[in-house]
Amino acid sequence: MNDNKAWSGRFAEPVAELVKTYTASVDFDRRMAEFDIQGSLAHAQMLTRAGVLSETDLDAIRSGMHTILEDIRAGRFEWSVDLEDVHMNVEKRLTDRIGDAGKRLHTGRSRNDQVATGIRLYLRDAIDRIVGFVRGLQAALLDLAEPNAATVMPGFTHLQVAQPVTFGHHLLAYVEMLGRDAERMQDCRKRVNRLPLGAAALAGTTYPIDRHYTAELLGFDDVCHNSLDAVSDRDFAIEFTAAASLVMTHLSRLSEELILWMSPRVGFIDIADRFCTGSSIMPQKKNPDVPELVRGKAGRVTGHLMALLMLMKAQPLAYNKDNQEDKEPLFDTVDTLIDTLRIYADMMRGITVRPEAMRAAVLQGFATATDLADYLVKKGVPFRDSHEIVARTVKLAEVQGCDIADLPLDELREFSELIEADVYDVLTPEGSLAQRNHVGGTAPEQVREQIARWRQRLAHA
Amino acid sequence: MNDNKAWSGRFAEPVAELVKTYTASVDFDRRMAEFDIQGSLAHAQMLTRAGVLSETDLDAIRSGMHTILEDIRAGRFEWSVDLEDVHMNVEKRLTDRIGDAGKRLHTGRSRNDQVATGIRLYLRDAIDRIVGFVRGLQAALLDLAEPNAATVMPGFTHLQVAQPVTFGHHLLAYVEMLGRDAERMQDCRKRVNRLPLGAAALAGTTYPIDRHYTAELLGFDDVCHNSLDAVSDRDFAIEFTAAASLVMTHLSRLSEELILWMSPRVGFIDIADRFCTGSSIMPQKKNPDVPELVRGKAGRVTGHLMALLMLMKAQPLAYNKDNQEDKEPLFDTVDTLIDTLRIYADMMRGITVRPEAMRAAVLQGFATATDLADYLVKKGVPFRDSHEIVARTVKLAEVQGCDIADLPLDELREFSELIEADVYDVLTPEGSLAQRNHVGGTAPEQVREQIARWRQRLAHA
Amino acid sequence: MNDNKAWSGRFAEPVAELVKTYTASVDFDRRMAEFDIQGSLAHAQMLTRAGVLSETDLDAIRSGMHTILEDIRAGRFEWSVDLEDVHMNVEKRLTDRIGDAGKRLHTGRSRNDQVATGIRLYLRDAIDRIVGFVRGLQAALLDLAEPNAATVMPGFTHLQVAQPVTFGHHLLAYVEMLGRDAERMQDCRKRVNRLPLGAAALAGTTYPIDRHYTAELLGFDDVCHNSLDAVSDRDFAIEFTAAASLVMTHLSRLSEELILWMSPRVGFIDIADRFCTGSSIMPQKKNPDVPELVRGKAGRVTGHLMALLMLMKAQPLAYNKDNQEDKEPLFDTVDTLIDTLRIYADMMRGITVRPEAMRAAVLQGFATATDLADYLVKKGVPFRDSHEIVARTVKLAEVQGCDIADLPLDELREFSELIEADVYDVLTPEGSLAQRNHVGGTAPEQVREQIARWRQRLAHA
Amino acid sequence: MNDNKAWSGRFAEPVAELVKTYTASVDFDRRMAEFDIQGSLAHAQMLTRAGVLSETDLDAIRSGMHTILEDIRAGRFEWSVDLEDVHMNVEKRLTDRIGDAGKRLHTGRSRNDQVATGIRLYLRDAIDRIVGFVRGLQAALLDLAEPNAATVMPGFTHLQVAQPVTFGHHLLAYVEMLGRDAERMQDCRKRVNRLPLGAAALAGTTYPIDRHYTAELLGFDDVCHNSLDAVSDRDFAIEFTAAASLVMTHLSRLSEELILWMSPRVGFIDIADRFCTGSSIMPQKKNPDVPELVRGKAGRVTGHLMALLMLMKAQPLAYNKDNQEDKEPLFDTVDTLIDTLRIYADMMRGITVRPEAMRAAVLQGFATATDLADYLVKKGVPFRDSHEIVARTVKLAEVQGCDIADLPLDELREFSELIEADVYDVLTPEGSLAQRNHVGGTAPEQVREQIARWRQRLAHA
Repeated sequence: MNDNKAWSGRFAEPVAELVKTYTASVDFDRRMAEFDIQGSLAHAQMLTRAGVLSETDLDAIRSGMHTILEDIRAGRFEWSVDLEDVHMNVEKRLTDRIGDAGKRLHTGRSRNDQVATGIRLYLRDAIDRIVGFVRGLQAALLDLAEPNAATVMPGFTHLQVAQPVTFGHHLLAYVEMLGRDAERMQDCRKRVNRLPLGAAALAGTTYPIDRHYTAELLGFDDVCHNSLDAVSDRDFAIEFTAAASLVMTHLSRLSEELILWMSPRVGFIDIADRFCTGSSIMPQKKNPDVPELVRGKAGRVTGHLMALLMLMKAQPLAYNKDNQEDKEPLFDTVDTLIDTLRIYADMMRGITVRPEAMRAAVLQGFATATDLADYLVKKGVPFRDSHEIVARTVKLAEVQGCDIADLPLDELREFSELIEADVYDVLTPEGSLAQRNHVGGTAPEQVREQIARWRQRLAHA
Repeated sequence: MNDNKAWSGRFAEPVAELVKTYTASVDFDRRMAEFDIQGSLAHAQMLTRAGVLSETDLDAIRSGMHTILEDIRAGRFEWSVDLEDVHMNVEKRLTDRIGDAGKRLHTGRSRNDQVATGIRLYLRDAIDRIVGFVRGLQAALLDLAEPNAATVMPGFTHLQVAQPVTFGHHLLAYVEMLGRDAERMQDCRKRVNRLPLGAAALAGTTYPIDRHYTAELLGFDDVCHNSLDAVSDRDFAIEFTAAASLVMTHLSRLSEELILWMSPRVGFIDIADRFCTGSSIMPQKKNPDVPELVRGKAGRVTGHLMALLMLMKAQPLAYNKDNQEDKEPLFDTVDTLIDTLRIYADMMRGITVRPEAMRAAVLQGFATATDLADYLVKKGVPFRDSHEIVARTVKLAEVQGCDIADLPLDELREFSELIEADVYDVLTPEGSLAQRNHVGGTAPEQVREQIARWRQRLAHA
Repeated sequence: MNDNKAWSGRFAEPVAELVKTYTASVDFDRRMAEFDIQGSLAHAQMLTRAGVLSETDLDAIRSGMHTILEDIRAGRFEWSVDLEDVHMNVEKRLTDRIGDAGKRLHTGRSRNDQVATGIRLYLRDAIDRIVGFVRGLQAALLDLAEPNAATVMPGFTHLQVAQPVTFGHHLLAYVEMLGRDAERMQDCRKRVNRLPLGAAALAGTTYPIDRHYTAELLGFDDVCHNSLDAVSDRDFAIEFTAAASLVMTHLSRLSEELILWMSPRVGFIDIADRFCTGSSIMPQKKNPDVPELVRGKAGRVTGHLMALLMLMKAQPLAYNKDNQEDKEPLFDTVDTLIDTLRIYADMMRGITVRPEAMRAAVLQGFATATDLADYLVKKGVPFRDSHEIVARTVKLAEVQGCDIADLPLDELREFSELIEADVYDVLTPEGSLAQRNHVGGTAPEQVREQIARWRQRLAHA
Repeated sequence: MNDNKAWSGRFAEPVAELVKTYTASVDFDRRMAEFDIQGSLAHAQMLTRAGVLSETDLDAIRSGMHTILEDIRAGRFEWSVDLEDVHMNVEKRLTDRIGDAGKRLHTGRSRNDQVATGIRLYLRDAIDRIVGFVRGLQAALLDLAEPNAATVMPGFTHLQVAQPVTFGHHLLAYVEMLGRDAERMQDCRKRVNRLPLGAAALAGTTYPIDRHYTAELLGFDDVCHNSLDAVSDRDFAIEFTAAASLVMTHLSRLSEELILWMSPRVGFIDIADRFCTGSSIMPQKKNPDVPELVRGKAGRVTGHLMALLMLMKAQPLAYNKDNQEDKEPLFDTVDTLIDTLRIYADMMRGITVRPEAMRAAVLQGFATATDLADYLVKKGVPFRDSHEIVARTVKLAEVQGCDIADLPLDELREFSELIEADVYDVLTPEGSLAQRNHVGGTAPEQVREQIARWRQRLAHA
């Protein structure tokens, strides 16, 4: 009989070796140790106030846990697969150390609510750190956007040159996306930050527990109001991973652009050598490895989201062992997100901008055609008609191999007599930019205003 | 030359027929017509106040749109694939009717920001309806929970009988899940309810627009603060579909349970005939088709989420045609969710409970073993030791083929001398339930309190 | 009592209206009508040979089905949602027409095996058509590759210029991918092409059926050897959709490249106007809509795969109503795949190549650096050392703003005295290409050989 | 300057520490070491025959690699993150040991084709092992099916009792599924087993390599015929993971059933203690942890599939760093599959069947209603009419609370005068089974035939 087990009396044979490693989680859930202990200490304190544990018990538990935590932090703690998970490992060690008081700690709880509490404490902490790293990346983007608030670059739709924008304006699009990401993380945090402890196995406990007190000790906003839901709910893991998938989707988009911009035919930017690698066979290569990996890792995190949704699909209440499979995807999502955000913030500070290449690209794509159309509309031509006029103008410029700004006035006037010499004011990139001067528009003045708005928001976040 | 097209002057050949149907969206995006018109009317009103359109133009646009809306509602509107999408169809009809004023409506906007506005108006409306249907299903669950606040049923973990719970308590777990679903929908709504209009193609417009005024007219909370982000952002569709996947996951869990409970060996409930179908070959069959379909449709909605995340992965800014693929998954998610929630609320009211089968199942699984353990702990036995004692008691009862409540006192006392006659008070299901009397616990008193709490929340929602 | 239903006697109330539309599949499964009839006719013929039906019955069934098929093809058939699905619609019509013989047709089968047979016949046909369209696209690629067997373009890794390749060679990479796609479709077809009919509801039938004879009549390779598996298996739908996801993944990669190649800064190709659209606001735009939609639709098909895997997850045997959800994702996958392959083959024939832009790009990226390294190795320098020498050479050329082929011999010799005048033979793109003359290499001779190999394979497919 | 790197001369600063760990793969790709060495030895042998390496070089490489392999197997090899991946670690060690011959090994190849070769060798081996474990599980299922070829159990559809089947027949459904799984793995193997080596970075090499010879040495069936495709193709990883997802889907279905069958209300089977665990709080519990984890892991593997499809979506040719993300999902899929198949085979041998519970369940669900219908049809009643008669009979039995076999003859005859005393022969479970005596049917004779057929197939696999 395996006396390490939390159960046993009723079992005729020990768990098979292969089963033991297949079902054990201690190899990956040990990272929750600090949070497990934090939860246990609050539980013990509540039990003591409720008269279930004595002050002596509480002192023993606190001192025992203190030593265990030190051992874990120092790498001295010996984890045992026989003890299945982090919770049993810690409890066994505690009992070895302090005897019956350790056994009494499990009063009024079960592993089902204990593990649900630990994972929520872990995730709450992770979310807080992630929001910090999101802010850090936003700040790095603002730092790059500021000196480029008026740097002309082509705005693309369909990867075709559409209209001039500024590089600063382009970067701010990502600041907005990351702003939503932080919002979503904080919305998710509300639902993470509710206490499942007290649900025991699934039905609550017969001990006179005070769940609101435990919640207060652990900084939870509320308690879970239904014990069956408390032990079986993994919504928070799914909601978090969905929010994380969106962060990664945004960064995959920026990565796609960085890779493109660094391609020699485009050449808009250069990424510092320390973020790139070379080739084992082609000595001239400098490869944007980091953005490529980030692009790839968007799939990784989305894969975890799919795994978690499929995991929970059609599971009957309450706790089933399936749920143990929530941890690895969740942990890997947290790690991937944090590493990616940190490295991305560094990398954005290592970007060299090539304004001349950006400007050359603007001039290659009839980027101010819309400005000509608007010019005509303001002279009274209905929009759809002016659109046709400009389309024919572009066709002529294309045939002549020049920009529309290069067509002489008399040729332009053949398309419409309303065109006059002042047309050339709106046909330069700078003229085009300056006119889009409303909230959200690409005019440098607006870009600077948005940067200021974000600086202030980040300062007060 | 195809003069129906929004572009054309520069194209040497018309779009191929196969391409036309491949790229057109009017077959599915026509459902956005009302929202497109709503957006256009606000845009026109803003342009008029800004002096870009005349009052005469505005009147013509309003009256033209009014007729078009009537035609659409009456099914008289003729949709044309040549005109690609709902927006061009409506605009062309307007121009046919009112001439140049119709052409001028497109001033200061582009299809990119127009479609982004329409889809947000559509989704905001859908979310509001969905939240209503979630509330409706919660109410139906409360109506079923209330008379069953004290109905004993086995609480399962691992589909093994764990401890007694009440059927009302079990149903409340789903009320909690749906409560979180409504929260998530409302959090998502905040990010939906921001105005992209004014971003034009991607860079803003040269007209003196007032985006805050348009936002106010349309009931948006804020404007999108970056034009590139405004036209390329589809976060809201992904966030919504992720929230929808969770709703469906919850309902797939309840479906799994309904199917199981209606299986003859379990027999806890019966679902009204009007929600079931029979077999073409087995005359005795009554099949829970609705829950089975719901279980299946959890995959459908998750599939849409996957499609949307993959759609946006690594797309460079700003708008790309890929984004047109956002609509079908989004629309189907809305439809699936609304149909499922409606039918589910009806179905919950058509459930007959079989309390005797539930009670019989409790007695078949040593459901009060934990209560015996707790009894011993309260007499001073450390939890882990009492667990072992009970395990051996269960083994004996299993051998004798009876419940532990059926073991005579002297046999019980062989395991521990601390056991006395009062032990039988905690070994009945009702005794077990009554003891779990804390917030979130399964005691009927607590269940009734939670029902009251939810009734009040729904009344003020 | 609803006498249209296949069941009924035991039901106390009719199906609710909302349930009727929620559970009916006739709106989407009617496309299987021809295959359902095909299956029914084979079943009838087998039953007749087995003596279960009379020749008179068989004649009546054949003639009735003939008329029904004509009605369906002519669009005259009236589909009824009350009759749930295509199978009941056809059977009811048959019975209306020919009376008891129609009722007897259902002898020895159930809807469970009937629907499984219909869907396999449908999918087998779809696979055969898809393989044809894959071949068609391969042929279009070969037609474009042949005149470009020696057209120099930069080969990219990490979107950085790596080494010269030929455009024909690049296109052949996609011919290879599509070749694997066709293989996978045909492997999948083997598992589709097995007969479930005869499994009846789930256990087989009491009639003296001859399943091998039915299989022979329907062109199936084998029968399903287990009745429970026969009615519950949807592997074929998942395997097909996985294979389809790979086709779409390949085309999303080619689409990404087409979009990139058509971007003005790259300018390697032009796509014919008939595959592009313009902008409602930017008259100069010509947008590669088709490749963008294809890229987006890769997500759509992968979403369907996810839906199907999640659908089948953890379903107990045998048939459950969940399985009805297999059809819409499957049908949409077939449609998407066929439309995409057809349009892609057309589009590849509408591509104009810009060899001068491709060549210019080669010269911009030190594409022949590896050739210099190989040159040195052949003179006895260890590979890793020559790599270092070339890296320093590239650095010098970069500083001087020229290609390494533009560095004078004496400067080159400063890096290694082994460099002699013949080095310039390997530093041109054409010299570089010609040297990679082994199976799979980019030398024009090899490219032509591969084209010939594929032409032959397609001719014998 | 980091002189360990494969590139370097052109880089002005070393890779940042965070980037180093973010981009390194050696922590997970070291498991490919044996396959990398295998590939290198074949490459060296080919180069020697081609005259590029000397026999002395080859001997040095062989002996150096031999020692390295011994070090790795003995756990003595020191892996360095600075050296990025398994390939550079091995090569650096070789060069340290044998000098220039080690440097020359990299002649005519690149890491791009080297890693593609290693991963294919790894996966080919994994597939072969997996097919073996699939066969092992099939054999375990046959061993359990054989003594239960005639064990009556209810066949379910919609989790309602449908018709009697035998437990052996039910198990054979899974043998069929696993049979298709093995087929798919072997079909996938064909596409894995093609040699990418010789593609070098992406364009082939300038050395006189003989790819067919290398393929022969490594046991590959063919070479990859296009170098760009060879280095960028990851189809095989996706196809394998899709096949693996189907294996896991099948096992998730069987797991669902085992969990259900072990639930006390059903009680069809018991799983040996060594595959179960108990509860930390409920001493009576015995939880089917293994099937629950398997059910959960179906999501894990499907998540990996989604990650891989999203990874490859829209990647331009040829190799991009994104592809490094293929390994972790692939490796975890292999591990999960092998562990699950092994443990499942063991577990099936630890199942105790409860035939009396199965039989009782058959009698609880009017399982022979179809047999009564068939009885009537054989007496001349059209199927649809007899279906109605039986539905009414079932309704009567339901009201009387008995099985239809318990209704007296005169009551039965009220529904149809064609019913005679011999009807009771078909109303027993055994009578029902025996009649379904055709290929694929549940008659014990057929079940035994299928077992024999599979035994023979496995013997010759």
